[in-house]
Amino acid sequence: MNMGTSPVQLQAVQAPGQPDVTPDLEDLYRNFEKEMLVPLWTEIGDLMPSHPRSQAKPHLWRWSNLRELAARAGDLVPVGRGGERRAIALANPSLGGRPFATPTLWAAIQYLLPGEDAPEHRHTQNAFRFIVEGEGVWTVVGGDSVAMRRGDFLPQPGWNWHAHYNVSTRPMSWIDGLDIPFQYLADTQFFEYGREEIPDDEKVSGDLSRSERLWGYPGLRPLSERIPSSGTPLLSYKWEYTDRALAEQLAVGADGLGGGLLDPGHAAIRYTNPVNGGDVLSTIRAEMHRVLPGVETRPRREVGSSVVQVFDGSGTVTVGNETWSVTRGDLFTVPSWKDFSVRSEAGATDSDSGALDLFRFSDLPVFEALGLYRSTVEENR
Amino acid sequence: MNMGTSPVQLQAVQAPGQPDVTPDLEDLYRNFEKEMLVPLWTEIGDLMPSHPRSQAKPHLWRWSNLRELAARAGDLVPVGRGGERRAIALANPSLGGRPFATPTLWAAIQYLLPGEDAPEHRHTQNAFRFIVEGEGVWTVVGGDSVAMRRGDFLPQPGWNWHAHYNVSTRPMSWIDGLDIPFQYLADTQFFEYGREEIPDDEKVSGDLSRSERLWGYPGLRPLSERIPSSGTPLLSYKWEYTDRALAEQLAVGADGLGGGLLDPGHAAIRYTNPVNGGDVLSTIRAEMHRVLPGVETRPRREVGSSVVQVFDGSGTVTVGNETWSVTRGDLFTVPSWKDFSVRSEAGATDSDSGALDLFRFSDLPVFEALGLYRSTVEENR
Amino acid sequence: MNMGTSPVQLQAVQAPGQPDVTPDLEDLYRNFEKEMLVPLWTEIGDLMPSHPRSQAKPHLWRWSNLRELAARAGDLVPVGRGGERRAIALANPSLGGRPFATPTLWAAIQYLLPGEDAPEHRHTQNAFRFIVEGEGVWTVVGGDSVAMRRGDFLPQPGWNWHAHYNVSTRPMSWIDGLDIPFQYLADTQFFEYGREEIPDDEKVSGDLSRSERLWGYPGLRPLSERIPSSGTPLLSYKWEYTDRALAEQLAVGADGLGGGLLDPGHAAIRYTNPVNGGDVLSTIRAEMHRVLPGVETRPRREVGSSVVQVFDGSGTVTVGNETWSVTRGDLFTVPSWKDFSVRSEAGATDSDSGALDLFRFSDLPVFEALGLYRSTVEENR
Amino acid sequence: MNMGTSPVQLQAVQAPGQPDVTPDLEDLYRNFEKEMLVPLWTEIGDLMPSHPRSQAKPHLWRWSNLRELAARAGDLVPVGRGGERRAIALANPSLGGRPFATPTLWAAIQYLLPGEDAPEHRHTQNAFRFIVEGEGVWTVVGGDSVAMRRGDFLPQPGWNWHAHYNVSTRPMSWIDGLDIPFQYLADTQFFEYGREEIPDDEKVSGDLSRSERLWGYPGLRPLSERIPSSGTPLLSYKWEYTDRALAEQLAVGADGLGGGLLDPGHAAIRYTNPVNGGDVLSTIRAEMHRVLPGVETRPRREVGSSVVQVFDGSGTVTVGNETWSVTRGDLFTVPSWKDFSVRSEAGATDSDSGALDLFRFSDLPVFEALGLYRSTVEENR
Repeated sequence: MNMGTSPVQLQAVQAPGQPDVTPDLEDLYRNFEKEMLVPLWTEIGDLMPSHPRSQAKPHLWRWSNLRELAARAGDLVPVGRGGERRAIALANPSLGGRPFATPTLWAAIQYLLPGEDAPEHRHTQNAFRFIVEGEGVWTVVGGDSVAMRRGDFLPQPGWNWHAHYNVSTRPMSWIDGLDIPFQYLADTQFFEYGREEIPDDEKVSGDLSRSERLWGYPGLRPLSERIPSSGTPLLSYKWEYTDRALAEQLAVGADGLGGGLLDPGHAAIRYTNPVNGGDVLSTIRAEMHRVLPGVETRPRREVGSSVVQVFDGSGTVTVGNETWSVTRGDLFTVPSWKDFSVRSEAGATDSDSGALDLFRFSDLPVFEALGLYRSTVEENR
Repeated sequence: MNMGTSPVQLQAVQAPGQPDVTPDLEDLYRNFEKEMLVPLWTEIGDLMPSHPRSQAKPHLWRWSNLRELAARAGDLVPVGRGGERRAIALANPSLGGRPFATPTLWAAIQYLLPGEDAPEHRHTQNAFRFIVEGEGVWTVVGGDSVAMRRGDFLPQPGWNWHAHYNVSTRPMSWIDGLDIPFQYLADTQFFEYGREEIPDDEKVSGDLSRSERLWGYPGLRPLSERIPSSGTPLLSYKWEYTDRALAEQLAVGADGLGGGLLDPGHAAIRYTNPVNGGDVLSTIRAEMHRVLPGVETRPRREVGSSVVQVFDGSGTVTVGNETWSVTRGDLFTVPSWKDFSVRSEAGATDSDSGALDLFRFSDLPVFEALGLYRSTVEENR
Repeated sequence: MNMGTSPVQLQAVQAPGQPDVTPDLEDLYRNFEKEMLVPLWTEIGDLMPSHPRSQAKPHLWRWSNLRELAARAGDLVPVGRGGERRAIALANPSLGGRPFATPTLWAAIQYLLPGEDAPEHRHTQNAFRFIVEGEGVWTVVGGDSVAMRRGDFLPQPGWNWHAHYNVSTRPMSWIDGLDIPFQYLADTQFFEYGREEIPDDEKVSGDLSRSERLWGYPGLRPLSERIPSSGTPLLSYKWEYTDRALAEQLAVGADGLGGGLLDPGHAAIRYTNPVNGGDVLSTIRAEMHRVLPGVETRPRREVGSSVVQVFDGSGTVTVGNETWSVTRGDLFTVPSWKDFSVRSEAGATDSDSGALDLFRFSDLPVFEALGLYRSTVEENR
Repeated sequence: MNMGTSPVQLQAVQAPGQPDVTPDLEDLYRNFEKEMLVPLWTEIGDLMPSHPRSQAKPHLWRWSNLRELAARAGDLVPVGRGGERRAIALANPSLGGRPFATPTLWAAIQYLLPGEDAPEHRHTQNAFRFIVEGEGVWTVVGGDSVAMRRGDFLPQPGWNWHAHYNVSTRPMSWIDGLDIPFQYLADTQFFEYGREEIPDDEKVSGDLSRSERLWGYPGLRPLSERIPSSGTPLLSYKWEYTDRALAEQLAVGADGLGGGLLDPGHAAIRYTNPVNGGDVLSTIRAEMHRVLPGVETRPRREVGSSVVQVFDGSGTVTVGNETWSVTRGDLFTVPSWKDFSVRSEAGATDSDSGALDLFRFSDLPVFEALGLYRSTVEENR
């Protein structure tokens, strides 16, 4: 009998808390292997640590590199049925080479040339687009064309038909975020092909999508519309409002009216579903943070992982033991239960708002829904 | 023993379903009266009808009369501690002369002269202001000044401190809606006096209230703010957005993109709490409807009562067996389970939008919360 | 024009906080009456008191009187279609002689002779039965016969078909509780007649109803059953379990294991819907309290009203300024925001458990659902 | 630079839907590897299949083998701090040799000798015990001793202190179920050591735990008790009730009263939290199914995975393409979206109820909470 063929491989070691290594124990372990069994006592330290020790690690991807490689892919890789998208995903260095930015989140740069269509499909994976630069591509969701421009956030709840098309004369790239790793690990994925091309008469009917025209007013619900069972019906959160909301929070904070800020000089919004005030997607939370020049945020530690993209400005980021200088477009991961803080650089030349703007998405809604969320903030520095 | 002093008065009548009228029965009834008892069999028709037969009736109040009487009250009745508000309430003709527009809802015109303050207080009654004309008065809620201008809707969840002040050179009147009758019947009211005057430095700090600056962006939640336990944190729903949302619904409907309208030519929004997408107040729903000229809405019947004010345009309203011609500012009641429809008049000269705009508030959230809501819409005409 | 015919009657009085009484003011008030208007400033003290001042008052009904009058009604009043039930309701002395125990609650003694059927009907009013003595009547709900015996609590969510029949050789009486006053004031009532008689083969199929057989096990949900949209699917809460649960709470309290008791010597259960753990009916909460001999509960004050029946034992009850000695079957009202406490009498001869057992039902779910609930408990005596 | 050290390894292949393999493409892929990037187009088939293709496979573990190996571990492996538990976990053959029964679920046999204590600890992982045979061990949760006997189900929401002790004269084994794999993949685990031994005076105070004495009555909520924020406060669901509930469902089905059964001859209960009617644990659902002899259930397919243990009887199980004969204690996995059906064997000699009883636990609450659940049942055979 060749035990070596069992996927289970147990090694008896002489160690505190472990049974004495004897021939009988070795024999027992061989029988465990044969029966596809693994004892808790050899694994408990790894499986049940005193606090999360993420398999993922903090890692940084430079936007300049991503953009350059995406452009080269634009030359070499066609977009069409089968491959579906010219999307290139971040692979966390300690997650086995799989395209997982964190154990639950996918983040990719997508790139579309002038005149190209990315074909229609739908899937249970929840998705969004976020645009750090450029314009000219539209996402069409169930026949509704939604513009994509710098600063816009386009959530897309699972199982909606969608495609992209570039009507401009320049290539465009943006960030896709999805819960692909989570649904892969959980075995919940469904996928269907739609139309290969979007007919011209369905393309770009105006500046605002149907979705925004019906759902894009603060606190006003259109009575004619059905409530979607999951995920937001508002398909674009335009930069104009995000920018104004952050500016007003800082102004309210400065006016001394009380509140407005998370820390002095640190404002933030969460993108929410107007139907219920919850997260835009059942598995993904998205936020935009603005940190004034010279301000350093308090280290914060949370259960769950996130991916952050620098939208504007420059600064220094610390995640766990890693510290990086970052600038527009750079992306990095914040694994579960790692301290995270940022320092905004005074006088950043690439900032429209004069501050450091960070777009962040995370898997926290999953853990809030299941009662597994925890966080700490360092109170005194 | 004088039975006549009992509040219970029973009369034996010979009728189908009733016991034979005999001296014994009369004696039994006298004993019921003495013991404060009332049999079901004499009351069931009134108490348990086959469908709601509202004690309230459809009734119309003309805005021109309300405004004139409010102005006369402005001359004769001071505003101050004790009386609290120069508010004059609609009294449904069949609710015993009490200031109840419907069994659950209060509706009043309030009037404030230049320079006047209505003193600060708070109460568990949920309230709102709606402005059909004029400007210059501000409502200050917990120190936050909120402008009041034509078309603005200002909800005010119970137990928040609030006052009003007129900083303009003209009197201003508006509509107050509250759940006073409901809380009166339910014995749930608490009330406290606050400051008699609002200090000048707390008055009017800018065009937008702190509330709007933090909560007034579509789908964007300020992360710094606590979630209020009940009722909306957004204290003004400005006309600019309501108007645009209704116009876009009609445009979407006209574009044939699908949806957008309740009926052809009939758009509507509900004012909702951005925190949870629910009603702005736990006991009061508020909506704005726009009906294009020449359009007649389908009769609709609902459990629960409402009060409607014509915001703009002219038309014909039918509630149960009553039909009225109405114009800007006119107010009317829709009792429970009465058919309600409107016809918008073509060429109304008093309409900014060219259509009939109706502001409506109701007690429906109460009945939805308790599983008692029902409605019917006439499908074919 | 005869102003006196208006239901609105306003009286100008010279008083603090009121406008000067002048001919102009009188004229204004006459115009208010004519236009069906009532000013806030004359009514605010009544409508918006500093805390609830219930229109209802504490009142006691003796079970011995109720039972005797019910038996006399048994002789004189037939049960059948039209009158529907031989039910005699408590009329709170300060609620205008209407059959309202409190502003929202109906409580009645119902009486059925051997062989009698109370015909089938259904209504939106939520109901329950509670049995203080006797047995032999069954309530049949949607074809499912449910036994009624001393101590049993039978909730019946609105809009279910139901009838009663007495298969024993003795008359039986019990208590009906409903939200008739609430639904009357709110105009939400629907009612339909069902079958006049229940066929014999549908009567009494066993000791346990279908409902209890499927839903009557702690924490075990039958996977085959649809979840009802409102109200509990468990149609009887048998005394056996209630009694044992109260006894165990007292035993746990006595064992010093921590918890178990509301006050020393005071145990209580709430009847809940196994589907969601909430109240059995959307508008009515029901509880059973057990107070050991010699124990006095702390005064408690709550928003909302309740009706209490002494199930067992004797004692002294204080509600607001009223104090009564009570014994088995006696019923009394606790109006909103009145202090309520009880003292259990040592050595009560009519108590199975040796304690004072109180059945209580209230309208509190309504106010919890709407964010209007408040309570206070006196902490130190 | 040695690209081979990158965890990312990309291989260009000539295939439909893939870009042409050229030196430029190879160079691009090398750069992707260097930058920790993975394209979607090479992975989409694996990551986004048309329906779940579970990494786990159907697999069967024989109870006789498990019990024998557990007994041998009893001889060789002490129980104490560090190893914590003598638990031996099922390792799905296609999950890399890790102790994961399915991608999200842990299932283990635990074994405790007479007089042994498993030391106290707590962790965020949700857990339960289920007992297929034996008795004599108690689980003590927060100081409350809960008996473990054949058929009992003991849920244990995360972060409660717990230990086990064997007060009998015989060894005992049982099944532990936890969400260890899910929390491992999601990085949400916290763990703390408690006391090494449970003092004697805390052990076994009576037949019923404090938890059962307060929460173990159908539909009766103890008013003295705080509502736990997550997970059930009822710590044991005794076999007596489960057995009776299943028997009554079958009897109701046989009586033709309507309902009662999932399929003819197939009854089932779900263990639920009495506080809210939901699942006993936020991440784990548990059910007991009873299938009458000769009955075959319809194939059912669901998103999410489960582990099933035969509690009683014998039969044939089909999961996907696997079919096994099973008997008491045998355990098997049902991966996501695999057809699952069972056939109960007539005349099984090891069945108390005469039927096939199956205990099943799954991760379905996770997917219901996130809107990712789907299922199909074959309607006609």
